[in-house]
This record gives sequence, C-alpha cells and structure tokens, in this order.
Amino acid sequence: MTAVTEAPAPMDPASIRAAVGELLHTFLDERERAAVEIPELAVFTGLLRDLLDAGGKRIRPVLCVVGWQTIRDDPPPSAVLRVAASIELFHACALIHDDIMDRSDTRRGRPTAHRVLAARHADHPDPANLGTNAAILFGDLALGWSYDLLHLHTAQDLTPEQRAVAWPLLNALRTETLVGQYLDLTATGRPTADTGSAWRIIRYKTARYTIEHPLCLGAALAGANLVQLRALSAYALPLGEAFQLRDDLLGVFGDPGRTGKSDLDDLREAKHTVLVATALQRATPGEARTLQALLGHGALDEDGARTIREILIATGAVSAVERAVHERHEQALHALTGSRLAPGAIARLRRLAESVTTRNT
Amino acid sequence: MTAVTEAPAPMDPASIRAAVGELLHTFLDERERAAVEIPELAVFTGLLRDLLDAGGKRIRPVLCVVGWQTIRDDPPPSAVLRVAASIELFHACALIHDDIMDRSDTRRGRPTAHRVLAARHADHPDPANLGTNAAILFGDLALGWSYDLLHLHTAQDLTPEQRAVAWPLLNALRTETLVGQYLDLTATGRPTADTGSAWRIIRYKTARYTIEHPLCLGAALAGANLVQLRALSAYALPLGEAFQLRDDLLGVFGDPGRTGKSDLDDLREAKHTVLVATALQRATPGEARTLQALLGHGALDEDGARTIREILIATGAVSAVERAVHERHEQALHALTGSRLAPGAIARLRRLAESVTTRNT
Repeated sequence: MTAVTEAPAPMDPASIRAAVGELLHTFLDERERAAVEIPELAVFTGLLRDLLDAGGKRIRPVLCVVGWQTIRDDPPPSAVLRVAASIELFHACALIHDDIMDRSDTRRGRPTAHRVLAARHADHPDPANLGTNAAILFGDLALGWSYDLLHLHTAQDLTPEQRAVAWPLLNALRTETLVGQYLDLTATGRPTADTGSAWRIIRYKTARYTIEHPLCLGAALAGANLVQLRALSAYALPLGEAFQLRDDLLGVFGDPGRTGKSDLDDLREAKHTVLVATALQRATPGEARTLQALLGHGALDEDGARTIREILIATGAVSAVERAVHERHEQALHALTGSRLAPGAIARLRRLAESVTTRNT
Repeated sequence: MTAVTEAPAPMDPASIRAAVGELLHTFLDERERAAVEIPELAVFTGLLRDLLDAGGKRIRPVLCVVGWQTIRDDPPPSAVLRVAASIELFHACALIHDDIMDRSDTRRGRPTAHRVLAARHADHPDPANLGTNAAILFGDLALGWSYDLLHLHTAQDLTPEQRAVAWPLLNALRTETLVGQYLDLTATGRPTADTGSAWRIIRYKTARYTIEHPLCLGAALAGANLVQLRALSAYALPLGEAFQLRDDLLGVFGDPGRTGKSDLDDLREAKHTVLVATALQRATPGEARTLQALLGHGALDEDGARTIREILIATGAVSAVERAVHERHEQALHALTGSRLAPGAIARLRRLAESVTTRNT
C-alpha cells in the first residue's frame, strides 16, 4: 500500500529570500578564503556583502523560485537556488554601475559604492574620480562572479537539459537588460510624447528582466514544456509592464516615507516614462511648455513638482496609466486561463499579480 | 606496418590570431542574428567588431594556444580556440572600461568607445556623460559575452576534466586582473619610492593576466600534469614581469613611431612603476623634489620629460630595471631546465622569452 503523501507547502517569499541570502554569503565566504593572498579583494567582498544585506526585495530570485514551484511540488534543489542567487549578483552589478551613471549618493539607505570607495581614498589627489573608477571595477567583479557562481558552483549539479534551457535564458536576461539601460540612458533628460519608446524601455529594462525571465527560468529548470512557458511569458510580460507603470506612478505620487525613495528624483532626472510621454501627448501647448521647462531641472522644488503633478492629472495621463495597469493585470490573469498549470500554481500567480499591481511601496 | 606520421607544425602566432579573429566574428555574427528584434544591439556589436579588428596583438589567446602546443602535438580543437577567444572578449571589456578611467581619446589609433558613443548622441544635453555611461554598459556586455562564448558555445565540447581545470583558472585570471587594475588606480597619480607595491601591480595587472594564466590555461586544457604546470608558472611569472618592465621602459624611452603610443602619457599620468619607484628610492633630495614636481602634470612638455628621463638614468633606475629584465629572463629560462617538457616546446618557449624581453614595440 502506497502512503498518500501531501505535497510540501511551497517556500514563501521570506524563506526564499533567506535561502538565497545564505547562499550568497557562502559564496562570498569562499571568495574571501580564496583571496587570502590578495587582501584588497576583501574591500570588494565587504562592499558586496553590505549591498546584498541592505534589504533589497530580491524580487528576481523570488520569481525564479516561484517559477519552479509553478511546475513542481518538490522544493527547489540548492542548484536552482544558486541560479536564483546568481541573478541577484548580476543585479548587484547593475545597481553599482547604475548608481555611477545616475551619480547617486545613497542606495538602500546607505552610501553608494562609488561614494564609499571615494571616502576610503580621501587622501588621493582626486578621490571622487578614483571612487567612480574603482566602482566600475567593483561592478565588473560582481558581474563576473554572477557567472562564476553558476559555472564553478552550480553547473555540475544541473542536468544537461537544465543547462541547455538556463544558459540562453540567462544570456537574454543580461543582454536585454543592458540594452534596456542603454535605451533609458539615451532617453533620460529629454522626455518626448513618444510613448512607443517609453514602452520599449519598460519592456527591456524591467518587464523581461524583473518578471518574465526569472519566472520562466525557474519554470524551465523545473522542466516546463513549451505551452507552459508560453503561458508564463504571456502572464509575466504585461505584469512586468504593470509593475513598472506602478513604479513610475509611485516615483511621482508615492509617499517617500513608504517607498523609501524621493518623489522628486524621477522628475529632476526627466525620466522618459509612459506617464510623462502620455501627458506630453495630451497636453495643451501651454502645459507642454511648462512640463518641458520644469522636467529635468536638478533644482526642481516641491512647488515645481506640484505643478507637474497637476498637469499629469489634468491631462488624464495619470488615469490613463492607472487604466493601463488595470488592463495589464487583466491580461496577465487571462493568460493563466487555459494555461495547463496546476490550480494551486494559478492561485499563487493570481495573488502575485494582485500584489505587484496594487503595491504602494 | 604502422606509418610513421610526423607531428604537424605548430600554429604560428599569425595563424592563431587569424583563427581567433574568425571565431570572434562568427560569435558576433550570431549575436547580431539573435538580436534582430533589438536593433540597438547592433550599435554594440559594431563597436566591438571595430575594437577587435583594430589590430591588437592578441597576446593572451596566442599564449593560450602556445600553452596547448607545449603539451600536445595535435592542433588545438576549436573549443580550445574558443576558450582563447573568450579571453580576448574579456580583454575588450578591460580596454573599454580602462579607457573610461584614463579618459583616453584613442585606442589602437581609433576613437575610444566612450568617444564614439558620445559622438553618436551629439544632440543629447550631455553627450560626454552619456558616452561614458553607455561605454560602461558596453564593457559590461563584452564581459558577459566572454562568459557566454564559453558557456553557450564551448562548454559542451570540453571534457568534464577540462572544464574543471579551465573555469577556476579563468576565474583567477579575471578576478586578479580587476584587483591589479584597482591597485594601479589607487597608486597612479602619486608615485612613491615603494617598489614593493609597484611589483604587486605588475604581478596582478600584467604578469599573471597576460602571460601566466593564458599559458597555463592552454596547457591545462591539453592535460598538463602538476609538475608541468608548475614549471610553466615558474617560467611565465618572471617573463610576465619582464614584459611589463620592458613596457614601462618603452613608455618613457620608446620611439612613439614604433610603439604606437606617446612617450609622455605614463609620465603625465604619474604611473607608479618599478622604474619610477626605483628612481625615487635612489634620488638625491633635489632629484626627488624635481621628479615629484614634474610627474603627474597633465601639461608636461618635452623639456620636462627630458629632465625626468635624465634623472631616471642618473639615479641608475634605468639600468636597474634593464638588469631586472635580464634577471627575470634568466629565471624564466632556468625554469624550463628539468621541466619535463618536450625539447621542441622548450625551444619555442625560449624563443618566446627572447622576443618578449627584447622587443622595441
């Protein structure tokens, strides 16, 4: 007589975050031990530890594990958790290099890597420049290590089939993200009414990188078939778009006390978002002139920001974006219907979609 | 009756360079085809093609193949050539990011990546900054692709034993190089009499990266045993040091028409070299003051450079460095004695050592 075993409860996001954090620590410990003859490496492992511990949401590793759980009931093996962790190391590089590009002073409430490195070399003739340059190298290290975590510590525990699906997905994840950042760079500082290019930035910089690729990666590692992967993509892409649209709204209308980020930065940088492009499309000539005059001013104050917010509302851009969030949420749910995924998995993905689109932090 | 087959002649450096170049082109072609839906990627593949075609010496891939030939008579399989090519892609990232750090305008006789990218966006409010930021992303792409070339296109053609020796060596190559660049960054601009730190920079930034790791990687892929690998390391490390010492001499005393680089740049940047540190150690207080006053001046002219050169000679620093080159050449040759390598391989390595230490370009 076969015992009826109940499927174990899936890992919740907090346990996934903790497990991934532990794997990253183990990896950094090993790097530190390997580097005894190069004491300078401890500078970088220490900085990386600080960044990884500073309380990021680890949304990509979480989604990778959620992808696994969508297909299989058994808990993800440690090799799959290491693949998830490697995305977080890649993300560390993206953050380090992003902060250089944006000249940001803080990240997750702490000084950014280039500022820490500049402070470390305060006696240098040009510490700010040295800090930036050292942080370029630091990001390169994190990027290289994201691959090393995979290929030195993980590859041998994956099957050839798993490797064959995972490597191209990870390659697409990285390449598309970098292109998305390039699109964002070239558009920031000169917003236009071109919503098409704003949608392309969202697709590559966020929707695929943050939601679609991690989710599909986990599912593919779990052996998802093509129909299932297509359904997950069809769910994840609009959800990722909704995620970024919500982020854009929070960046201008959010409560800095809850979001942890200023509600002026996006406006001061003149980010080319769907929100702003839509407003420019619908604005009267006078409103458009006001927007163009105020957006991108580094010294934009609360009064100026209020004027921008009023125009974003008056033009109907805010409600158009809210509507787009809602539509994409619906599209995501629709993709789950007839997806041949297990009912439990569908229920979890529905809850995830709800939390992504309605979040206020 | 068994036919006596003669071992094929080993590939010469020109054929290795050509074969590696072809593999890199094939890889870039494939990247371009894969990126039809992301036209912006063509910007980066085009720039990478230009950089790779602009006539670098490809010394690291060449040494990787020489390492293979030191152990085996059969020609290196294409997977080994791809490993060699992947080092060149990593090197492309190092050059792109180095040029940002050094604010260089030209590389291999052409505008550097950040200058090309700035020119491409001349209509942007801050094209120089955009060019630098886009070049950070471009270097990241090249770095990621150096791993993708290995893991998407090569890993499956290597044996598990080959992967087990190659991955850690490549990891060490990359990590140590980045640390070497960090050491170099922090020391540049403020040369001291500390020859010890100058030797550490050489070891990580050049000797291991350019000579030891590529040579040992090729030999390890060919199945070298530990005794052989130790002999090759013992040969390569002093040779790599000699290579960089020669480079430092050429950077100050070389003929720009032959070396292709200015004989003022190292002095203007105040590179912390063994040459300069030795001079500062041996200088009279007056000479030391003059050196410190002149080194690092961005506007240093030919007269100032002549004064520095005279002090470098008068203090005996130049002859000390020439002696160090000679000694390291001897050490390299000595390591080959009793190395259990084949006589033909030893002869080739002796010729290589000769050309590295006596080059004038």
